[in-house]
Amino acid sequence: MAVREESETADGVVTRVRPFLRLKAVIERRDSRAGRLFDGGIQFLIILNLIAFSIDTLPSIPENLRITLAGFEIFSIVIFTLEYLTRLLVADSRPRFIFSFFGLVDLAATLPFYLAFGMDLRAIRALRLLRLLKLLRYGPAINRFHRAFFIARDELILFGTAAMIVLFLAATGIYFFENEAQPEAFQSVFHALWWAVATLTTVGYGDVYPVTVGGRVFTAFVVIVGLGIVAVPTGLFASALSKARAEEDEAKRRK
Amino acid sequence: MAVREESETADGVVTRVRPFLRLKAVIERRDSRAGRLFDGGIQFLIILNLIAFSIDTLPSIPENLRITLAGFEIFSIVIFTLEYLTRLLVADSRPRFIFSFFGLVDLAATLPFYLAFGMDLRAIRALRLLRLLKLLRYGPAINRFHRAFFIARDELILFGTAAMIVLFLAATGIYFFENEAQPEAFQSVFHALWWAVATLTTVGYGDVYPVTVGGRVFTAFVVIVGLGIVAVPTGLFASALSKARAEEDEAKRRK
Amino acid sequence: MAVREESETADGVVTRVRPFLRLKAVIERRDSRAGRLFDGGIQFLIILNLIAFSIDTLPSIPENLRITLAGFEIFSIVIFTLEYLTRLLVADSRPRFIFSFFGLVDLAATLPFYLAFGMDLRAIRALRLLRLLKLLRYGPAINRFHRAFFIARDELILFGTAAMIVLFLAATGIYFFENEAQPEAFQSVFHALWWAVATLTTVGYGDVYPVTVGGRVFTAFVVIVGLGIVAVPTGLFASALSKARAEEDEAKRRK
Amino acid sequence: MAVREESETADGVVTRVRPFLRLKAVIERRDSRAGRLFDGGIQFLIILNLIAFSIDTLPSIPENLRITLAGFEIFSIVIFTLEYLTRLLVADSRPRFIFSFFGLVDLAATLPFYLAFGMDLRAIRALRLLRLLKLLRYGPAINRFHRAFFIARDELILFGTAAMIVLFLAATGIYFFENEAQPEAFQSVFHALWWAVATLTTVGYGDVYPVTVGGRVFTAFVVIVGLGIVAVPTGLFASALSKARAEEDEAKRRK
Repeated sequence: MAVREESETADGVVTRVRPFLRLKAVIERRDSRAGRLFDGGIQFLIILNLIAFSIDTLPSIPENLRITLAGFEIFSIVIFTLEYLTRLLVADSRPRFIFSFFGLVDLAATLPFYLAFGMDLRAIRALRLLRLLKLLRYGPAINRFHRAFFIARDELILFGTAAMIVLFLAATGIYFFENEAQPEAFQSVFHALWWAVATLTTVGYGDVYPVTVGGRVFTAFVVIVGLGIVAVPTGLFASALSKARAEEDEAKRRK
Repeated sequence: MAVREESETADGVVTRVRPFLRLKAVIERRDSRAGRLFDGGIQFLIILNLIAFSIDTLPSIPENLRITLAGFEIFSIVIFTLEYLTRLLVADSRPRFIFSFFGLVDLAATLPFYLAFGMDLRAIRALRLLRLLKLLRYGPAINRFHRAFFIARDELILFGTAAMIVLFLAATGIYFFENEAQPEAFQSVFHALWWAVATLTTVGYGDVYPVTVGGRVFTAFVVIVGLGIVAVPTGLFASALSKARAEEDEAKRRK
Repeated sequence: MAVREESETADGVVTRVRPFLRLKAVIERRDSRAGRLFDGGIQFLIILNLIAFSIDTLPSIPENLRITLAGFEIFSIVIFTLEYLTRLLVADSRPRFIFSFFGLVDLAATLPFYLAFGMDLRAIRALRLLRLLKLLRYGPAINRFHRAFFIARDELILFGTAAMIVLFLAATGIYFFENEAQPEAFQSVFHALWWAVATLTTVGYGDVYPVTVGGRVFTAFVVIVGLGIVAVPTGLFASALSKARAEEDEAKRRK
Repeated sequence: MAVREESETADGVVTRVRPFLRLKAVIERRDSRAGRLFDGGIQFLIILNLIAFSIDTLPSIPENLRITLAGFEIFSIVIFTLEYLTRLLVADSRPRFIFSFFGLVDLAATLPFYLAFGMDLRAIRALRLLRLLKLLRYGPAINRFHRAFFIARDELILFGTAAMIVLFLAATGIYFFENEAQPEAFQSVFHALWWAVATLTTVGYGDVYPVTVGGRVFTAFVVIVGLGIVAVPTGLFASALSKARAEEDEAKRRK
């Protein structure tokens, strides 16, 4: 097996032979085929879990599908529990693993289901979403997002603040124009903020819109002026994300 | 005719005279006027076919238009059949042509209509759309799209994944906020996904939208944060497409 | 007056003194104060005309406003006629001026109103919009748009074609998914095209939207893939317009 | 306290000792801890005021919250009055401070509430929004926006004008297409302008949309052609804002 092929090199490098060394390499590293298989398997199971979670929210699902989902849930908990225990077993420092971010995530992804055994509480079911966080362990994606945020930090703050001010001013303005004509939809500045968000992001559901002449002229003005300001932050983050990836590639090439 | 003017040069270049050589040049290459005319004619016929296909879907069309369309369909099949046979005739290797991508496309664009002769099956009619694929043969467009995809591949995967995660999280979030207030529109995470797509692409049909305070605050947050992530992939592809074209121009200039 | 100040220099430069020379300088050039005043006056009048045209479409306007508008219309025609005659008078070649683009535009902006004197035809009123074209004479804007189009020409064709194909495929796809469920809104591929335009430009009026599961999944796919393609052409044109302006500035600085 | 620590250095630098010198440093400069605390406190109070203003617009708020808000309003006026008086006290030239932009803003943020004492006029309440302007004093944000506008000035004018023309032409066009079919929604060119703004910014509320074939074809054409033109100005301003910030950073690094 792939593990054996790998082990010799591993043994060669590490002189202080410890038990679980091969297992540790498989679980914590991605440079062997078994390691990649293990990682891929866990990732695949997490995604299946998210799909199962989604299916579970369907209002009327046939009985046999419900049973299948319940079976799959038990299967998932077993696998995730085994994963947790193995990670604990091979950890350099067990207490540090337990209180690490991913240690807590792994625990939160399984423990509640033992505690709530037999009960079908909605809150418990929602906790299954925490399994999504387990995905963060894999790949350099989390670092990348982190770095992208850091790259664009100053600009994100600048445009985030500008977006807030534009949204607030738009909401206050439309409130004064439309409050009288549509006391229901534009009850308060907070209700007007909902309109401001829907309008300045150009989503435009059409549940609230100005009807007075003043409100429409104000909307035209605000949309043309404020559109870009509100849309900029995500664009900035996207370009920073792209830059972070380029930097990683550069760093890899230099090695 | 144009063919004759061209032929002398062709004869001068090619010493090993083969039958259909002139015809082959006209059909497979674009460097003679006859070749460009043939290509242009086929392209024009394909576009007319797509328009005829669209007209055919109109619920109530006058009888004489229906007859015209039927006549045009027969005319098209005849031309496309002749085109197929000629391409087969002049192909370097006939079996290879038959099983090539474009050979199969050309066949699929005509064969079903002989098999279904007389019957007016809807599925058969839909097959006419395959004629669109014939357009891919012309111009460097297909290569360009291919290369654009290759250029932006890593980023497309990065943002494609990010978009998936944002859409899924948005859908799950709104499901928890709105499910109780609007059990119909937000029945399940899948229904909520429809909302997430319509919102985060800023299409905002207005068929589903949050009504609770929590749902609206969540929407504001998700839209401002997630907008760019979802919109990025196509932007990336567009800029890659543009880059691919620039590279082609560069390559041409160097020749 | 400004004309007098200018005239000496003009006389100095031009040795062959012609009648209307000062008038010609005022009307055809912008390098004197009188010339700029004349141009500015005409531009202002054109914009007032467009506003008057818009007010005129209001369904119920008070009688005195209607009379004011009619008076303003007569005033405008008089001014524009005088402008036309003066331009004709000072033109280097009168027949060439009459048949030039701007000569025809100037004529079309006044002549119909003499022919239709007394009659209040809607078509005649619409012709007043032609006065907008008179604006094109001023400033380098028209050249700039022209050049912007030229700069982005290849890309505009590439993305224009891609946009067409995406719209057509989206329309055809949604037609097959939604035709049965919504025979009214998705009657034909043409009706579906309206949906495709409203969706892929993210306008999303909400007058037509998919209701079937298949249609919604298809929409999600199409929007995420096709969004950028459809939005690109205008972005390209905008950046080309910006580039054209930069080139002009560069050219000016070198002088 | 921080003021004391600072004072020694201040005394060392300034030889001509004036009364209020320490106070002046705290209020007008940000280089001491007390100065930053003062600025931060005022900023925080302004933001709390805006939130209180928004809450105040809620149609039905409990009595005790109303009393709290009234108390907070009195507290704010007291603080802002003290701030105004202190700024006046330490100003180099008192008349110049009173008639400076920020002097007037500070006055407008408090004075009306003394004049309208006891009365609960809506217009007076709206004046509270002027306190937002007080925020402009802090940070380099206002300079930045100013400079961003200056950087993109030519382009903003170019695209602003282009956007106006596109909107006007779109409105006039749709008016002719839809006026007959929807005399209510497309009553005049002004009503059509509302549609043009909602459509070309892709907000697409769905309150007005074309229903005729001509109007829909025109809309498709206009949206695909005009989209970018209308969306460009804000994009330009956003990129100029980003450039202005980069220039500031550059300037700081050089110091």
